[in-house]
Amino acid sequence: MSFENAQERANELDSTDSLKNARNLFDIPADVLYFDGNSLGPLTHASRQILQQTIEVEWRERLIRSWSEDWLAMPARVGDLIAPLIGAPQGTVVCCDNTSINLYKALSAAVGLRPNRKEIVVDIDNFPTDIYIAQSVADQHGLSVKAVKAADMVTAISEDTAVVTATHVDYRTANILDVEGITKQAHRHGALMVWDLAHTTGAVPFDVLAHDIDFAVGCGYKYLNGGPGAPAYIYGAERLLDQVSQPLQGWFGHDAPFAFDSGFRAAPGPGRFLTGTVTVLGMKSLEAALSVFSHASMADIRRKNTELTSFFIDLFDEHLAQRGFTLVSPRDPELRGSHVALGCERGKELVDRLTAHNILVDFRPPDLIRCGFAAPYNGFGNVVSLVESLAAF
Amino acid sequence: MSFENAQERANELDSTDSLKNARNLFDIPADVLYFDGNSLGPLTHASRQILQQTIEVEWRERLIRSWSEDWLAMPARVGDLIAPLIGAPQGTVVCCDNTSINLYKALSAAVGLRPNRKEIVVDIDNFPTDIYIAQSVADQHGLSVKAVKAADMVTAISEDTAVVTATHVDYRTANILDVEGITKQAHRHGALMVWDLAHTTGAVPFDVLAHDIDFAVGCGYKYLNGGPGAPAYIYGAERLLDQVSQPLQGWFGHDAPFAFDSGFRAAPGPGRFLTGTVTVLGMKSLEAALSVFSHASMADIRRKNTELTSFFIDLFDEHLAQRGFTLVSPRDPELRGSHVALGCERGKELVDRLTAHNILVDFRPPDLIRCGFAAPYNGFGNVVSLVESLAAF
Repeated sequence: MSFENAQERANELDSTDSLKNARNLFDIPADVLYFDGNSLGPLTHASRQILQQTIEVEWRERLIRSWSEDWLAMPARVGDLIAPLIGAPQGTVVCCDNTSINLYKALSAAVGLRPNRKEIVVDIDNFPTDIYIAQSVADQHGLSVKAVKAADMVTAISEDTAVVTATHVDYRTANILDVEGITKQAHRHGALMVWDLAHTTGAVPFDVLAHDIDFAVGCGYKYLNGGPGAPAYIYGAERLLDQVSQPLQGWFGHDAPFAFDSGFRAAPGPGRFLTGTVTVLGMKSLEAALSVFSHASMADIRRKNTELTSFFIDLFDEHLAQRGFTLVSPRDPELRGSHVALGCERGKELVDRLTAHNILVDFRPPDLIRCGFAAPYNGFGNVVSLVESLAAF
Repeated sequence: MSFENAQERANELDSTDSLKNARNLFDIPADVLYFDGNSLGPLTHASRQILQQTIEVEWRERLIRSWSEDWLAMPARVGDLIAPLIGAPQGTVVCCDNTSINLYKALSAAVGLRPNRKEIVVDIDNFPTDIYIAQSVADQHGLSVKAVKAADMVTAISEDTAVVTATHVDYRTANILDVEGITKQAHRHGALMVWDLAHTTGAVPFDVLAHDIDFAVGCGYKYLNGGPGAPAYIYGAERLLDQVSQPLQGWFGHDAPFAFDSGFRAAPGPGRFLTGTVTVLGMKSLEAALSVFSHASMADIRRKNTELTSFFIDLFDEHLAQRGFTLVSPRDPELRGSHVALGCERGKELVDRLTAHNILVDFRPPDLIRCGFAAPYNGFGNVVSLVESLAAF
């Protein structure tokens, strides 16, 4: 398919795209090609508007009153907005802190429920922070970390395993891990399962109930478009929530924070995962950006994301394979998340040059170019431009 | 002193106030009397402006590029702006997370340096979250928590003590603890000292070097005016920084976060206290608000704060003592932080009524009315109005 034909095909796809109006929810500069939503989602008009309101009215005018009028309810309220995106019931998710901290809480809670086990099993290709945190929790509890390839996780899990953790969509390859197989195997051996949904939430449907997931964490600044350093979230299964504790037991996680009791008594439900004062501006921005998902269902987003990545891979075959790029992500769309990674020896240099021309993708060492596709604002015509740029630079 | 005479005196004091122009740095609604800066500082023009810039340029236009262009450097840069306010050298403070989480890191780091001790000594009147966190760290390390009155801390510290923690200015009474006595006693017994400076930073001068403090934490949203849920900070003494570890070892605390190594290697200096992705909007707002301290020295702020609280207490004696209020804060200005607490049986009801009339102070159970005085924007005339309202309601 020549670029000319590709452009024609893209025009057709864009014109019949059921999500084409969602792009109007975003304010992306006209001269930018943005394929980096899996590192930082772009600004929505809704986030700009709510931040203005938060600064001018809630902070400036209402001042301290805004805590009781609105902000104290935010972590649970925003959690409830995220819940449907991962198949979680209302009242099982809170928004707070960052993903590393939330993973620490989830792993600590899980290990606390399985006191006589010996190890934490992790995907060796997991995002590094997840491995660092798993190592820390293991060290604190006298456990070891067994790090194995994703494909070997099922066989690595045993009666010694306290908890298993992995990221659903691999941050480099976009490979979707075998949620059902790994989770079932963990449960079969009495271990608990913590999924990191950083590259999943808002891009790939997930169902914590269908797989009876114990804990999940995820991030607010990628496909949820919450803005730079937007807070993360943590999910706990209802059957576990009231028995778990986590070591960052601050006053926001207390059953009655404003009673100022000297003894800690965990809040019911996921509120016990809160620590100290939550960040307001970032959470407001995230809350507003989540309105995107009332305009676009996860099923529609997944369908279009798959079409975008498949279209990109078709163009890769035609134009990039012969130019020194290799495809690192799965060809099977069922096994592929919402980004595509290409190997390229001069990847770093190329990404820098593209960046200087407002074509924004990621570089991940040693040689990966990572392009994130976000159905709400990426179109098929944008994909053609991206491939043309990759071929030309 | 009648209210009329008090108003005259206030006019004189306001007209000769060397900090009177600092109020222009803030945007406080004209109809609000704000004496709650020790729960949430008001909006500065600088914060509004930087947030606008962050949203419109750094997020909207520069998108992911802003991490390398600016945001990654923020925690250390903002830490360096906070450092002079607590007498800390450059390169010993980072801004991140919230105070509860930072206290958890500091206490964990300290306990890790004193492995064969038996207890953590805390002020029993400490802000509750500090006690919850101390209990959690103690539980994790098989230590006990010895909670005693501030005045008894010196005698409670022994060779069994791993670490001592207290808040410098008591959140209820504003009583300033004996930093020198408590810290020296801790060190004499080989224990480490962690000060919480939540009600100190930006209001009461502190000198981590003069007292050879080991660790300190503090908050960004009170007297630093960083905005709701603005990030907190953590200080570590240079002599300790390179030997300490803390359990929230996320990728932002790694020596080379973008190498994506699978093994954790702590960043040099205070960077090892970072966890995962830092919150950008809140930290930007805090950074801008810290410019207040380039217009007003801590010495001038302390002098005026003391004049404000003394003036308030003079008026209390004249007008409130006979109306069922009691003074809970120290009369000696040397022992008093920057707020004044009054006991009042119907305190909750009174604070609610004042709040409804835009006169903003805090209630703290069971019966305390807490008024925070912030030199950069509170004037003496405001104090007269506050006392008139307390007397009238």
